[in-house]
Amino acid sequence: MENILKKRVSIRKFQDKDIDNNILIDLLESAFRASTTGNMQLYSVIITKDKSKKEQLAPSHFCQPAFMNAPVILTFCADYNRFNKWCEARKTDPGSDNILSLTSAALDAIIAAQTFCVAAEAKGLGICYLGTTTYNASQIAETLSLPKFVVPIVTLSVGYPDEAPKQTDRLNVGDLVHFETYKDYTNSDIERIYAPKESLPENIAFVKENEKQNLAQVFAEVRYKRADNEAFSKSLISFLRKQGFLHSNPL
Amino acid sequence: MENILKKRVSIRKFQDKDIDNNILIDLLESAFRASTTGNMQLYSVIITKDKSKKEQLAPSHFCQPAFMNAPVILTFCADYNRFNKWCEARKTDPGSDNILSLTSAALDAIIAAQTFCVAAEAKGLGICYLGTTTYNASQIAETLSLPKFVVPIVTLSVGYPDEAPKQTDRLNVGDLVHFETYKDYTNSDIERIYAPKESLPENIAFVKENEKQNLAQVFAEVRYKRADNEAFSKSLISFLRKQGFLHSNPL
Repeated sequence: MENILKKRVSIRKFQDKDIDNNILIDLLESAFRASTTGNMQLYSVIITKDKSKKEQLAPSHFCQPAFMNAPVILTFCADYNRFNKWCEARKTDPGSDNILSLTSAALDAIIAAQTFCVAAEAKGLGICYLGTTTYNASQIAETLSLPKFVVPIVTLSVGYPDEAPKQTDRLNVGDLVHFETYKDYTNSDIERIYAPKESLPENIAFVKENEKQNLAQVFAEVRYKRADNEAFSKSLISFLRKQGFLHSNPL
Repeated sequence: MENILKKRVSIRKFQDKDIDNNILIDLLESAFRASTTGNMQLYSVIITKDKSKKEQLAPSHFCQPAFMNAPVILTFCADYNRFNKWCEARKTDPGSDNILSLTSAALDAIIAAQTFCVAAEAKGLGICYLGTTTYNASQIAETLSLPKFVVPIVTLSVGYPDEAPKQTDRLNVGDLVHFETYKDYTNSDIERIYAPKESLPENIAFVKENEKQNLAQVFAEVRYKRADNEAFSKSLISFLRKQGFLHSNPL
Protein backbone atom coordinates (compact mmCIF):
# COMPACT_ATOMS: atom_id res chain seq x y z
CA MET A 1 0.00 0.00 0.00
CA GLU A 2 2.78 2.39 0.94
CA ASN A 3 4.33 1.82 -2.49
CA ILE A 4 1.02 2.45 -4.22
CA LEU A 5 0.85 5.86 -2.57
CA LYS A 6 4.52 6.78 -2.79
CA LYS A 7 5.20 5.64 -6.34
CA ARG A 8 2.03 6.97 -7.93
CA VAL A 9 1.88 9.24 -10.96
CA SER A 10 -1.03 10.90 -12.72
CA ILE A 11 -1.92 9.30 -16.05
CA ARG A 12 -2.97 11.31 -19.08
CA LYS A 13 -2.74 8.64 -21.78
CA PHE A 14 -5.00 5.61 -21.59
CA GLN A 15 -5.46 2.35 -23.46
CA ASP A 16 -8.49 2.22 -25.73
CA LYS A 17 -10.29 -0.11 -23.34
CA ASP A 18 -13.51 0.36 -21.40
CA ILE A 19 -13.73 -0.13 -17.64
CA ASP A 20 -16.51 -2.54 -16.71
CA ASN A 21 -19.32 -0.88 -14.75
CA ASN A 22 -19.04 -3.55 -12.03
CA ILE A 23 -15.43 -2.52 -11.47
CA LEU A 24 -16.41 1.16 -11.26
CA ILE A 25 -19.21 0.43 -8.80
CA ASP A 26 -16.90 -1.72 -6.71
CA LEU A 27 -14.32 1.10 -6.55
CA LEU A 28 -17.08 3.54 -5.60
CA GLU A 29 -18.09 1.13 -2.80
CA SER A 30 -14.61 1.70 -1.38
CA ALA A 31 -14.81 5.45 -1.98
CA PHE A 32 -18.15 5.76 -0.22
CA ARG A 33 -16.80 4.11 2.97
CA ALA A 34 -14.55 7.15 3.51
CA SER A 35 -15.48 9.76 6.13
CA THR A 36 -18.45 12.01 5.38
CA THR A 37 -20.04 14.92 7.22
CA GLY A 38 -22.26 13.33 9.89
CA ASN A 39 -22.76 10.34 7.57
CA MET A 40 -25.00 12.45 5.34
CA GLN A 41 -23.11 11.45 2.17
CA LEU A 42 -23.67 14.77 0.46
CA TYR A 43 -22.38 13.76 -2.97
CA SER A 44 -23.33 12.22 -6.28
CA VAL A 45 -21.10 10.87 -9.02
CA ILE A 46 -21.85 11.19 -12.72
CA ILE A 47 -20.23 8.57 -14.95
CA THR A 48 -19.57 9.68 -18.53
CA LYS A 49 -18.80 6.96 -21.08
CA ASP A 50 -21.15 7.73 -23.95
CA LYS A 51 -19.28 9.22 -26.91
CA SER A 52 -21.72 12.00 -27.71
CA LYS A 53 -22.06 13.01 -24.06
CA LYS A 54 -18.28 13.10 -23.80
CA GLU A 55 -18.11 15.36 -26.84
CA GLN A 56 -20.59 17.75 -25.22
CA LEU A 57 -18.55 17.80 -22.03
CA ALA A 58 -15.14 18.21 -23.71
CA PRO A 59 -15.14 22.01 -24.22
CA SER A 60 -15.80 22.52 -20.48
CA HIS A 61 -12.50 20.74 -19.90
CA PHE A 62 -10.77 22.65 -22.72
CA CYS A 63 -10.53 19.38 -24.69
CA GLN A 64 -7.35 18.57 -22.77
CA PRO A 65 -5.67 15.26 -23.77
CA ALA A 66 -6.21 13.71 -20.31
CA PHE A 67 -9.94 14.17 -20.91
CA MET A 68 -10.07 13.22 -24.59
CA ASN A 69 -8.05 10.00 -24.15
CA ALA A 70 -9.93 8.60 -21.17
CA PRO A 71 -12.57 5.88 -21.56
CA VAL A 72 -14.31 7.00 -18.34
CA ILE A 73 -14.92 10.43 -16.88
CA LEU A 74 -16.23 10.75 -13.32
CA THR A 75 -17.69 14.02 -12.07
CA PHE A 76 -17.92 14.13 -8.28
CA CYS A 77 -20.56 16.62 -7.19
CA ALA A 78 -21.49 18.23 -3.91
CA ASP A 79 -25.15 17.21 -3.66
CA TYR A 80 -27.69 18.65 -1.21
CA ASN A 81 -30.57 18.01 -3.61
CA ARG A 82 -31.17 14.44 -2.43
CA PHE A 83 -30.85 15.39 1.25
CA ASN A 84 -33.15 18.41 0.81
CA LYS A 85 -35.80 16.23 -0.82
CA TRP A 86 -35.57 13.79 2.10
CA CYS A 87 -36.01 16.64 4.58
CA GLU A 88 -38.96 17.96 2.61
CA ALA A 89 -40.60 14.52 2.65
CA ARG A 90 -40.02 14.43 6.44
CA LYS A 91 -41.46 17.93 7.00
CA THR A 92 -38.28 19.63 8.11
CA ASP A 93 -36.12 22.51 6.84
CA PRO A 94 -32.63 21.36 5.80
CA GLY A 95 -31.27 24.92 6.14
CA SER A 96 -28.65 24.15 3.49
CA ASP A 97 -28.84 27.26 1.28
CA ASN A 98 -25.54 28.65 2.53
CA ILE A 99 -21.80 28.47 2.05
CA LEU A 100 -21.17 26.31 5.14
CA SER A 101 -23.46 23.57 3.83
CA LEU A 102 -21.81 23.75 0.42
CA THR A 103 -18.42 23.42 2.12
CA SER A 104 -19.53 20.26 3.95
CA ALA A 105 -20.86 18.72 0.76
CA ALA A 106 -17.73 19.66 -1.22
CA LEU A 107 -15.57 18.06 1.48
CA ASP A 108 -17.60 14.85 1.26
CA ALA A 109 -17.24 14.83 -2.53
CA ILE A 110 -13.48 15.43 -2.55
CA ILE A 111 -12.78 12.85 0.18
CA ALA A 112 -14.79 10.28 -1.79
CA ALA A 113 -13.03 11.21 -5.04
CA GLN A 114 -9.56 10.84 -3.58
CA THR A 115 -10.47 7.51 -1.99
CA PHE A 116 -11.70 6.39 -5.38
CA CYS A 117 -8.30 7.37 -6.84
CA VAL A 118 -6.38 5.32 -4.28
CA ALA A 119 -8.66 2.32 -4.81
CA ALA A 120 -8.38 2.62 -8.60
CA GLU A 121 -4.59 2.95 -8.57
CA ALA A 122 -4.32 -0.09 -6.29
CA LYS A 123 -6.15 -2.04 -9.03
CA GLY A 124 -3.77 -0.89 -11.76
CA LEU A 125 -5.94 1.88 -13.17
CA GLY A 126 -4.62 5.39 -13.80
CA ILE A 127 -6.31 8.68 -12.93
CA CYS A 128 -5.91 12.37 -13.58
CA TYR A 129 -7.73 15.22 -11.83
CA LEU A 130 -9.09 17.86 -14.20
CA GLY A 131 -8.79 21.24 -12.51
CA THR A 132 -11.15 22.69 -15.08
CA THR A 133 -14.23 21.59 -13.11
CA THR A 134 -14.54 24.73 -10.98
CA TYR A 135 -13.59 26.93 -13.97
CA ASN A 136 -16.58 25.84 -15.99
CA ALA A 137 -18.95 24.47 -13.36
CA SER A 138 -21.99 26.12 -14.87
CA GLN A 139 -21.53 24.58 -18.33
CA ILE A 140 -20.73 21.19 -16.80
CA ALA A 141 -23.93 21.37 -14.75
CA GLU A 142 -25.90 22.09 -17.89
CA THR A 143 -24.34 19.22 -19.84
CA LEU A 144 -24.90 16.75 -17.00
CA SER A 145 -28.41 18.07 -16.12
CA LEU A 146 -27.44 18.90 -12.54
CA PRO A 147 -30.37 20.37 -10.62
CA LYS A 148 -30.29 23.14 -8.01
CA PHE A 149 -28.17 22.28 -4.95
CA VAL A 150 -25.81 20.10 -6.99
CA VAL A 151 -22.36 21.51 -7.86
CA PRO A 152 -19.58 19.68 -9.75
CA ILE A 153 -16.43 19.79 -7.62
CA VAL A 154 -13.82 17.49 -9.14
CA THR A 155 -13.57 15.53 -12.37
CA LEU A 156 -11.43 12.43 -12.81
CA SER A 157 -10.19 10.87 -16.02
CA VAL A 158 -9.90 7.13 -15.45
CA GLY A 159 -8.56 4.29 -17.54
CA TYR A 160 -5.93 1.64 -18.06
CA PRO A 161 -2.55 3.43 -18.34
CA ASP A 162 -0.89 3.65 -21.73
CA GLU A 163 2.18 5.47 -20.44
CA ALA A 164 4.58 5.24 -17.50
CA PRO A 165 5.69 8.82 -16.84
CA LYS A 166 8.37 9.55 -14.30
CA GLN A 167 7.28 11.12 -11.03
CA THR A 168 7.14 14.89 -10.91
CA ASP A 169 9.10 16.68 -8.18
CA ARG A 170 7.65 17.57 -4.81
CA LEU A 171 8.72 20.12 -2.20
CA ASN A 172 10.41 18.71 0.91
CA VAL A 173 7.80 17.47 3.36
CA GLY A 174 9.50 19.22 6.27
CA ASP A 175 9.01 22.60 4.61
CA LEU A 176 5.23 22.14 4.43
CA VAL A 177 4.83 20.96 8.02
CA HIS A 178 4.70 23.21 11.08
CA PHE A 179 4.92 22.06 14.68
CA GLU A 180 2.42 23.67 17.06
CA THR A 181 2.27 27.04 15.26
CA TYR A 182 2.83 28.24 11.71
CA LYS A 183 6.39 29.51 11.31
CA ASP A 184 6.15 32.05 8.56
CA TYR A 185 8.66 31.74 5.72
CA THR A 186 11.60 34.15 5.51
CA ASN A 187 13.11 35.19 2.19
CA SER A 188 15.92 32.72 2.65
CA ASP A 189 13.41 29.93 3.45
CA ILE A 190 11.70 30.65 0.15
CA GLU A 191 15.01 30.50 -1.75
CA ARG A 192 15.91 27.19 -0.09
CA ILE A 193 12.46 25.61 -0.54
CA TYR A 194 12.06 26.39 -4.24
CA ALA A 195 15.72 26.07 -5.36
CA PRO A 196 15.62 22.29 -6.06
CA LYS A 197 12.41 22.68 -8.10
CA GLU A 198 13.82 25.63 -10.07
CA SER A 199 17.04 23.82 -10.90
CA LEU A 200 15.44 20.68 -12.38
CA PRO A 201 16.27 20.35 -16.09
CA GLU A 202 12.60 19.78 -16.98
CA ASN A 203 11.58 22.96 -15.18
CA ILE A 204 14.39 24.98 -16.77
CA ALA A 205 13.16 23.73 -20.15
CA PHE A 206 9.58 24.59 -19.18
CA VAL A 207 10.59 28.19 -18.40
CA LYS A 208 12.37 28.48 -21.75
CA GLU A 209 9.41 27.01 -23.68
CA ASN A 210 7.14 29.59 -22.12
CA GLU A 211 9.61 32.42 -22.79
CA LYS A 212 9.67 33.51 -19.16
CA GLN A 213 12.52 34.35 -16.81
CA ASN A 214 11.66 31.91 -14.04
CA LEU A 215 9.28 29.13 -13.00
CA ALA A 216 7.10 31.29 -10.73
CA GLN A 217 6.35 33.49 -13.74
CA VAL A 218 5.19 30.47 -15.75
CA PHE A 219 2.67 29.67 -13.03
CA ALA A 220 1.54 33.26 -12.44
CA GLU A 221 1.66 34.62 -16.01
CA VAL A 222 0.89 31.60 -18.19
CA ARG A 223 -0.82 28.76 -16.36
CA TYR A 224 -2.84 30.49 -13.60
CA LYS A 225 -3.16 34.13 -14.62
CA ARG A 226 -4.90 36.80 -12.54
CA ALA A 227 -7.32 37.64 -15.35
CA ASP A 228 -8.42 33.99 -15.66
CA ASN A 229 -8.64 33.49 -11.90
CA GLU A 230 -10.82 36.57 -11.58
CA ALA A 231 -13.09 35.69 -14.50
CA PHE A 232 -13.54 32.08 -13.28
CA SER A 233 -14.16 33.30 -9.71
CA LYS A 234 -16.87 35.59 -10.97
CA SER A 235 -18.64 32.85 -12.94
CA LEU A 236 -18.21 30.36 -10.07
CA ILE A 237 -19.84 32.74 -7.62
CA SER A 238 -22.74 33.44 -9.92
CA PHE A 239 -23.19 29.68 -10.48
CA LEU A 240 -23.15 28.97 -6.71
CA ARG A 241 -25.82 31.64 -6.30
CA LYS A 242 -27.92 30.02 -9.04
CA GLN A 243 -27.53 26.58 -7.41
CA GLY A 244 -28.94 28.01 -4.17
CA PHE A 245 -25.90 28.11 -1.89
CA LEU A 246 -25.60 31.88 -1.46
CA HIS A 247 -29.14 32.51 -0.34
CA SER A 248 -28.86 32.79 3.46
CA ASN A 249 -25.72 34.89 3.33
CA PRO A 250 -25.79 37.14 0.28
CA LEU A 251 -22.25 38.29 1.26
CA MET B 1 -5.81 -2.55 0.34
CA GLU B 2 -9.41 -3.11 -0.70
CA ASN B 3 -10.15 -4.38 2.81
CA ILE B 4 -8.47 -1.39 4.38
CA LEU B 5 -10.82 0.90 2.47
CA LYS B 6 -13.97 -1.21 2.73
CA LYS B 7 -13.72 -2.20 6.39
CA ARG B 8 -12.62 1.16 7.77
CA VAL B 9 -14.31 3.01 10.62
CA SER B 10 -13.64 6.41 12.15
CA ILE B 11 -11.97 6.24 15.56
CA ARG B 12 -12.85 8.60 18.40
CA LYS B 13 -11.11 6.84 21.30
CA PHE B 14 -7.35 6.50 21.24
CA GLN B 15 -4.69 4.80 23.35
CA ASP B 16 -2.65 7.13 25.52
CA LYS B 17 0.36 6.73 23.25
CA ASP B 18 2.24 9.28 21.17
CA ILE B 19 2.89 8.83 17.46
CA ASP B 20 6.56 9.20 16.62
CA ASN B 21 7.29 12.26 14.44
CA ASN B 22 9.15 10.07 11.94
CA ILE B 23 5.99 8.05 11.44
CA LEU B 24 3.93 11.20 10.91
CA ILE B 25 6.43 12.62 8.42
CA ASP B 26 6.54 9.30 6.57
CA LEU B 27 2.73 9.26 6.30
CA LEU B 28 2.81 12.86 5.07
CA GLU B 29 5.36 11.80 2.42
CA SER B 30 2.65 9.49 1.08
CA ALA B 31 -0.01 12.19 1.40
CA PHE B 32 2.05 14.75 -0.50
CA ARG B 33 2.47 12.40 -3.49
CA ALA B 34 -1.26 12.72 -4.19
CA SER B 35 -2.47 14.94 -7.03
CA THR B 36 -2.20 18.71 -6.55
CA THR B 37 -3.21 21.70 -8.66
CA GLY B 38 -0.46 22.08 -11.28
CA ASN B 39 2.02 20.63 -8.76
CA MET B 40 1.88 23.87 -6.76
CA GLN B 41 1.23 22.03 -3.46
CA LEU B 42 -0.92 24.79 -2.04
CA TYR B 43 -1.12 23.41 1.50
CA SER B 44 0.54 23.34 4.90
CA VAL B 45 -0.04 20.98 7.80
CA ILE B 46 0.09 22.04 11.44
CA ILE B 47 0.88 19.25 13.90
CA THR B 48 -0.50 19.78 17.41
CA LYS B 49 0.91 17.57 20.18
CA ASP B 50 1.82 20.04 22.91
CA LYS B 51 -0.63 19.88 25.81
CA SER B 52 -1.09 23.60 26.32
CA LYS B 53 -1.50 24.26 22.59
CA LYS B 54 -4.08 21.50 22.44
CA GLU B 55 -5.98 23.10 25.32
CA GLN B 56 -6.03 26.42 23.44
CA LEU B 57 -7.32 24.68 20.32
CA ALA B 58 -9.96 22.56 22.09
CA PRO B 59 -12.80 25.13 22.31
CA SER B 60 -12.61 25.69 18.53
CA HIS B 61 -13.49 22.01 18.19
CA PHE B 62 -16.16 22.20 20.90
CA CYS B 63 -13.95 20.00 23.13
CA GLN B 64 -15.43 16.94 21.37
CA PRO B 65 -14.14 13.58 22.68
CA ALA B 66 -12.50 12.69 19.33
CA PHE B 67 -10.36 15.80 19.78
CA MET B 68 -9.70 15.53 23.52
CA ASN B 69 -8.65 11.86 23.38
CA ALA B 70 -6.25 12.10 20.46
CA PRO B 71 -2.46 12.28 20.94
CA VAL B 72 -2.04 14.07 17.61
CA ILE B 73 -4.13 16.70 15.85
CA LEU B 74 -3.38 17.62 12.25
CA THR B 75 -4.78 20.79 10.71
CA PHE B 76 -4.57 20.74 6.92
CA CYS B 77 -4.59 24.29 5.56
CA ALA B 78 -5.08 25.81 2.13
CA ASP B 79 -1.85 27.83 1.85
CA TYR B 80 -1.15 30.49 -0.78
CA ASN B 81 1.18 32.38 1.56
CA ARG B 82 4.27 30.35 0.63
CA PHE B 83 3.49 30.48 -3.09
CA ASN B 84 2.76 34.22 -2.96
CA LYS B 85 6.11 34.86 -1.26
CA TRP B 86 7.86 32.84 -3.97
CA CYS B 87 6.13 34.89 -6.69
CA GLU B 88 7.05 38.10 -4.91
CA ALA B 89 10.70 37.02 -4.76
CA ARG B 90 10.51 36.26 -8.50
CA LYS B 91 8.89 39.62 -9.35
CA THR B 92 5.54 38.32 -10.49
CA ASP B 93 1.92 38.72 -9.37
CA PRO B 94 0.40 35.43 -8.12
CA GLY B 95 -3.14 36.77 -8.68
CA SER B 96 -4.42 34.52 -5.91
CA ASP B 97 -6.67 36.88 -3.94
CA ASN B 98 -9.87 35.28 -5.18
CA ILE B 99 -12.26 32.42 -4.58
CA LEU B 100 -10.97 30.28 -7.47
CA SER B 101 -7.46 30.24 -6.03
CA LEU B 102 -8.81 29.40 -2.59
CA THR B 103 -10.78 26.54 -4.15
CA SER B 104 -7.63 25.12 -5.78
CA ALA B 105 -5.70 25.32 -2.51
CA ALA B 106 -8.57 23.77 -0.53
CA LEU B 107 -8.74 20.91 -3.01
CA ASP B 108 -5.00 20.28 -2.63
CA ALA B 109 -5.36 20.29 1.16
CA ILE B 110 -8.33 17.89 1.26
CA ILE B 111 -6.80 15.47 -1.24
CA ALA B 112 -3.60 15.38 0.85
CA ALA B 113 -5.58 14.94 4.09
CA GLN B 114 -7.58 12.01 2.76
CA THR B 115 -4.45 10.33 1.38
CA PHE B 116 -2.90 10.75 4.83
CA CYS B 117 -5.95 9.00 6.31
CA VAL B 118 -5.64 6.01 3.99
CA ALA B 119 -1.90 5.74 4.65
CA ALA B 120 -2.45 6.02 8.42
CA GLU B 121 -5.22 3.42 8.49
CA ALA B 122 -3.07 1.03 6.45
CA LYS B 123 -0.49 1.30 9.27
CA GLY B 124 -3.03 0.51 11.99
CA LEU B 125 -3.69 4.07 13.11
CA GLY B 126 -7.19 5.48 13.53
CA ILE B 127 -8.47 8.84 12.36
CA CYS B 128 -11.48 11.06 12.75
CA TYR B 129 -12.32 14.18 10.73
CA LEU B 130 -13.44 17.14 12.84
CA GLY B 131 -16.11 19.02 10.91
CA THR B 132 -15.67 21.94 13.28
CA THR B 133 -12.74 23.35 11.29
CA THR B 134 -14.78 25.51 8.94
CA TYR B 135 -17.15 26.50 11.78
CA ASN B 136 -14.39 28.13 13.77
CA ALA B 137 -11.72 28.78 11.16
CA SER B 138 -10.95 32.25 12.46
CA GLN B 139 -10.23 31.15 16.06
CA ILE B 140 -8.19 28.18 14.81
CA ALA B 141 -6.12 30.52 12.63
CA GLU B 142 -5.44 32.70 15.65
CA THR B 143 -4.41 29.76 17.86
CA LEU B 144 -2.11 28.33 15.18
CA SER B 145 -0.72 31.75 14.09
CA LEU B 146 -1.87 31.31 10.51
CA PRO B 147 -0.93 34.32 8.37
CA LYS B 148 -2.96 35.91 5.58
CA PHE B 149 -3.64 33.54 2.64
CA VAL B 150 -3.66 30.49 4.94
CA VAL B 151 -7.05 28.92 5.80
CA PRO B 152 -7.62 25.79 7.92
CA ILE B 153 -9.74 23.38 5.89
CA VAL B 154 -9.84 20.01 7.67
CA THR B 155 -8.66 18.76 11.04
CA LEU B 156 -7.81 15.14 11.78
CA SER B 157 -7.60 13.43 15.13
CA VAL B 158 -5.00 10.68 14.85
CA GLY B 159 -3.85 7.94 17.21
CA TYR B 160 -3.67 4.25 17.99
CA PRO B 161 -7.27 2.98 18.26
CA ASP B 162 -8.66 2.15 21.67
CA GLU B 163 -12.02 0.99 20.35
CA ALA B 164 -13.36 -1.16 17.54
CA PRO B 165 -16.73 0.34 16.64
CA LYS B 166 -19.00 -1.35 14.15
CA GLN B 167 -19.31 0.26 10.73
CA THR B 168 -22.01 2.86 10.30
CA ASP B 169 -24.55 2.41 7.53
CA ARG B 170 -24.14 3.83 4.05
CA LEU B 171 -26.65 4.52 1.30
CA ASN B 172 -26.63 2.11 -1.64
CA VAL B 173 -23.90 3.03 -4.09
CA GLY B 174 -26.23 2.72 -7.06
CA ASP B 175 -28.46 5.45 -5.67
CA LEU B 176 -25.61 7.97 -5.58
CA VAL B 177 -24.34 7.21 -9.08
CA HIS B 178 -25.82 8.57 -12.30
CA PHE B 179 -25.00 7.37 -15.80
CA GLU B 180 -24.43 10.14 -18.38
CA THR B 181 -26.89 12.62 -16.83
CA TYR B 182 -28.27 13.28 -13.36
CA LYS B 183 -31.61 11.51 -12.94
CA ASP B 184 -33.42 13.60 -10.40
CA TYR B 185 -34.98 11.73 -7.47
CA THR B 186 -38.73 11.17 -7.34
CA ASN B 187 -40.63 11.00 -4.05
CA SER B 188 -40.66 7.23 -4.24
CA ASP B 189 -36.89 7.17 -4.92
CA ILE B 190 -36.38 9.17 -1.73
CA GLU B 191 -38.55 6.75 0.26
CA ARG B 192 -36.65 3.75 -1.10
CA ILE B 193 -33.17 5.30 -0.63
CA TYR B 194 -33.61 6.39 2.97
CA ALA B 195 -35.86 3.54 4.23
CA PRO B 196 -33.01 1.15 5.20
CA LYS B 197 -31.22 3.94 7.11
CA GLU B 198 -34.41 5.01 8.89
CA SER B 199 -35.25 1.48 9.96
CA LEU B 200 -31.90 0.68 11.62
CA PRO B 201 -32.33 0.11 15.37
CA GLU B 202 -29.48 2.53 16.17
CA ASN B 203 -31.10 5.27 14.11
CA ILE B 204 -34.52 4.64 15.65
CA ALA B 205 -32.87 4.98 19.07
CA PHE B 206 -31.09 8.14 17.91
CA VAL B 207 -34.40 9.74 16.90
CA LYS B 208 -35.92 8.86 20.28
CA GLU B 209 -32.92 10.22 22.22
CA ASN B 210 -33.26 13.50 20.39
CA GLU B 211 -37.02 13.60 20.94
CA LYS B 212 -37.76 14.01 17.24
CA GLN B 213 -40.22 12.28 14.93
CA ASN B 214 -37.75 11.09 12.32
CA LEU B 215 -34.07 10.93 11.40
CA ALA B 216 -34.12 13.81 8.91
CA GLN B 217 -35.34 16.06 11.73
CA VAL B 218 -32.39 15.06 13.92
CA PHE B 219 -30.03 16.20 11.17
CA ALA B 220 -31.91 19.38 10.29
CA GLU B 221 -33.12 20.46 13.74
CA VAL B 222 -30.44 19.19 16.13
CA ARG B 223 -27.12 18.43 14.46
CA TYR B 224 -26.98 20.87 11.52
CA LYS B 225 -29.49 23.61 12.25
CA ARG B 226 -30.22 26.51 9.92
CA ALA B 227 -29.33 29.09 12.57
CA ASP B 228 -25.89 27.50 13.12
CA ASN B 229 -25.26 27.05 9.40
CA GLU B 230 -26.08 30.69 8.78
CA ALA B 231 -23.99 32.00 11.67
CA PHE B 232 -20.98 29.84 10.72
CA SER B 233 -21.35 30.84 7.05
CA LYS B 234 -21.26 34.48 8.04
CA SER B 235 -18.13 34.13 10.14
CA LEU B 236 -16.46 31.92 7.50
CA ILE B 237 -17.06 34.54 4.81
CA SER B 238 -15.70 37.32 6.96
CA PHE B 239 -12.63 35.20 7.77
CA LEU B 240 -12.02 34.41 4.08
CA ARG B 241 -12.20 38.13 3.38
CA LYS B 242 -9.67 38.81 6.16
CA GLN B 243 -7.34 36.11 4.79
CA GLY B 244 -7.33 37.86 1.43
CA PHE B 245 -9.38 35.51 -0.75
CA LEU B 246 -12.35 37.78 -1.45
CA HIS B 247 -10.40 40.73 -2.73
CA SER B 248 -10.67 40.44 -6.52
CA ASN B 249 -14.35 39.51 -6.45
CA PRO B 250 -16.07 41.31 -3.58
CA LEU B 251 -19.26 39.36 -4.50
